[in-house]
Amino acid sequence: MEQKQNTEQRKRLEKQIRFIIEVDKVKNIFRQTYLADGQRKENDAEHSWHLALSAVLLKEHMKEEVDLAKVMIMVLIHDLVEIDAGDTYAYDAAGAATKREREVKAATRIFGLLPEDQGAYFRSLWDEFEEYETADAKFAHLLDNFQPLLLNDASEGRSWEEHGVHKSQVCRRNERIPDTSEIVWEKMLEIMDKHIAEGHLKAD
Amino acid sequence: MEQKQNTEQRKRLEKQIRFIIEVDKVKNIFRQTYLADGQRKENDAEHSWHLALSAVLLKEHMKEEVDLAKVMIMVLIHDLVEIDAGDTYAYDAAGAATKREREVKAATRIFGLLPEDQGAYFRSLWDEFEEYETADAKFAHLLDNFQPLLLNDASEGRSWEEHGVHKSQVCRRNERIPDTSEIVWEKMLEIMDKHIAEGHLKAD
Repeated sequence: MEQKQNTEQRKRLEKQIRFIIEVDKVKNIFRQTYLADGQRKENDAEHSWHLALSAVLLKEHMKEEVDLAKVMIMVLIHDLVEIDAGDTYAYDAAGAATKREREVKAATRIFGLLPEDQGAYFRSLWDEFEEYETADAKFAHLLDNFQPLLLNDASEGRSWEEHGVHKSQVCRRNERIPDTSEIVWEKMLEIMDKHIAEGHLKAD
Repeated sequence: MEQKQNTEQRKRLEKQIRFIIEVDKVKNIFRQTYLADGQRKENDAEHSWHLALSAVLLKEHMKEEVDLAKVMIMVLIHDLVEIDAGDTYAYDAAGAATKREREVKAATRIFGLLPEDQGAYFRSLWDEFEEYETADAKFAHLLDNFQPLLLNDASEGRSWEEHGVHKSQVCRRNERIPDTSEIVWEKMLEIMDKHIAEGHLKAD
């Protein structure tokens, strides 16, 4: 009996290791946002680390109660689908059209590497994030949108400038933030207005 | 009263943002371990992301009960002191001698950027990690040691080979792993022996 248990546990460990090595690839998936020092673009692993850490700090500003551990896991895995589907820039309309289909296929393959229960759990968190309905998903999206804005602010709006982004685009992408946290939304508006004044972001 | 509360909350948010931008620097602190594809070395942010994600998966193999959320936060912040103190390679004896002093000073400065309660909380987690006594700290150290071993395995022992590392050094560094998780320790030994056979790690 113990032998059988060990074999089962060992099989689980091998699947987990396979997944851990597979997801190493997100360290090579680069986003459009620059690091705070403006020297190079950020990759998905760095971005996800930054969101999980920020979750611990910013939880207190959310209007609704959230489950911190769950949100941390959600943001740690939210970009894994980009291993197969690639990164679609927030303001790339053509990419957005096929994004969903590419990402669903990727989720099936990547979470499918794990022991069934763990794969199903990660998939349910990714689905919850994508559906953007629950308080936890709203917090995760706030983190996902606020962090690049802070990096854009620190790097003198470099990414906005390169892509000729308009304030209305940022506002549309962030239309659910006021409903998630008023104080964070105020701060986002303040940052946008500062960069309009400095010429990095286009007014409408 | 509400105005005062808002001012206080706003001050907290500003400190949190200051910290979030400061810790962006770990994305430029490179470790000695190569990514799984062997193409470049890994930085602290990527490493910490990988540990937090692995914590979710590997918790089930630990001998003692652990607090997953706490361990995730612990590994997300465990390397922040390297912003001031730099990365000390696991098998660098000269660096190890001054490491502790440099890191304590860094912890005081970096966690000191946060609102007092949050800074004290992060400091207590970092201290707990460094003391390596509790079940949570033992799990965090297991993650911190197992992940680079998995990357070394995937990248054909490149980092071991470059530094001429001996199995006895890896075993000494990991002497508390058997007491934390037998199955992970078995897997570590298996990986080491494979790389001795392949000539990437030196037998003793």
